[in-house]
Amino acid sequence: MKHAREGGPVRYRARVEYDGTEFAGFQVQPGRRTVQGELERALAHLSGEPRIQVKVAGRTDAGVHATGQVIAFTWTGSMPAKQLGPAIGALLPRDVAIGPLSRVALDFDPRRAATRRTYRYSIWTGPRSPLRSRYVYELDEHLDVEAMQDAANHLVGRHDFSAFGRVQNTAIRTLYEVRLRRRGHLITVDVIGDAFLQQMVRSIVAALIRIGMGRATAKDLVDELRSPGRAFAGAVVPAQGLCLRRVTIGPSRQRDNKKARQGP
Amino acid sequence: MKHAREGGPVRYRARVEYDGTEFAGFQVQPGRRTVQGELERALAHLSGEPRIQVKVAGRTDAGVHATGQVIAFTWTGSMPAKQLGPAIGALLPRDVAIGPLSRVALDFDPRRAATRRTYRYSIWTGPRSPLRSRYVYELDEHLDVEAMQDAANHLVGRHDFSAFGRVQNTAIRTLYEVRLRRRGHLITVDVIGDAFLQQMVRSIVAALIRIGMGRATAKDLVDELRSPGRAFAGAVVPAQGLCLRRVTIGPSRQRDNKKARQGP
Repeated sequence: MKHAREGGPVRYRARVEYDGTEFAGFQVQPGRRTVQGELERALAHLSGEPRIQVKVAGRTDAGVHATGQVIAFTWTGSMPAKQLGPAIGALLPRDVAIGPLSRVALDFDPRRAATRRTYRYSIWTGPRSPLRSRYVYELDEHLDVEAMQDAANHLVGRHDFSAFGRVQNTAIRTLYEVRLRRRGHLITVDVIGDAFLQQMVRSIVAALIRIGMGRATAKDLVDELRSPGRAFAGAVVPAQGLCLRRVTIGPSRQRDNKKARQGP
Repeated sequence: MKHAREGGPVRYRARVEYDGTEFAGFQVQPGRRTVQGELERALAHLSGEPRIQVKVAGRTDAGVHATGQVIAFTWTGSMPAKQLGPAIGALLPRDVAIGPLSRVALDFDPRRAATRRTYRYSIWTGPRSPLRSRYVYELDEHLDVEAMQDAANHLVGRHDFSAFGRVQNTAIRTLYEVRLRRRGHLITVDVIGDAFLQQMVRSIVAALIRIGMGRATAKDLVDELRSPGRAFAGAVVPAQGLCLRRVTIGPSRQRDNKKARQGP
């Protein structure tokens, strides 16, 4: 598969995992510790260039974790991918890891190429548990998971989600599935959609928790979706319970590869 | 059940969970952050006494975690157990939690009362994983779990374990079971025994890993057990993979309760 002239720039895609606890989110911010900042620092160190920009599929907020984040960057050096991947890994701090590098088209943008994102929100309803607390929202309440699932089902589909997140341009998104599961004291909420507004998963989970506690109903949720701004008052659950588990690179990737095959 | 005169001192037992990452072990050490130190600080704060000594079933080393540690202390204040437990919990840092308090005999010593301890050592053999790294030993090697289990079986029973830990008086201990399991990239080693020498679990796991890598055999392990100090050279695996999961308070507890029933 040809992507660019030999010796020219090469674009790579990789899966990235991070513990978000000590990061001010993914995106670079001056004077703050960010995942993008750590990745770009490692790349700059290896390349000698002042900056190699890292693009990402889903910008996560401060404290949010990821096991299946997808990034991309363009490399102009001579080090082959098989060495470059481990070299980057060796320069990353303990709370970020990078998977194997795979070559993509020079115009590959993970945000545009991603067709589906899977987030998991974890709620711990048992006694306080220090070995879990970094990765769950500890909420000592009984939650009616069946009522939450029933309400969540109304969110599935193509909707204007202005009520559940910070809107920039359009708030129209498609939710493919919201799946709740209880295993002992642990309740997980898997949310799968094409794309998400900022704080959208945390705002949906906050609304579902109100329903699970009997303080709101599925009807309130549907009303909120239709005419935002009343029932749930923009509440969000804490960041540490959220994890970006999977980014699916779908048809867009095929298109990228096809473009790449046609040559520069 | 009567344990002491009304209004006199009362002894409590409780389960304690902690993330060992930021502790210099369980036991109090001047100028170091320890689990015992945090518990005693909370108790002193609530009681107004300069120190209420906390006794423990198994002193864990720096970096070792616990989900099922057992502690005991004597309380002379008037606050009832139902309030005292949550009050202690509220004063503990995020990485320590205490379960409900249950009343025991005034001479109850969790170390002596414990008849069985269950430790789990976790080895992650997959790619580096920041969301797991606090609680596993990351070892990017293929391990032959069947060979490890076969060797481990030779350790079960009553033996002199001088080869596998720091000896104070006697090194004779009974291992009830060593059970290995592989789930994907995760290998867990559950070690159940009556009591353990310092670093005994970590030293057994280090030996088993050498066997799993094909660098030693079950026969080497048996030889080492019989005449310590040759094959495994005191190697130990890192603390963060180890967790004290359960302390069984067995017949000794019955005896304590019986003594207690007889009154002071």
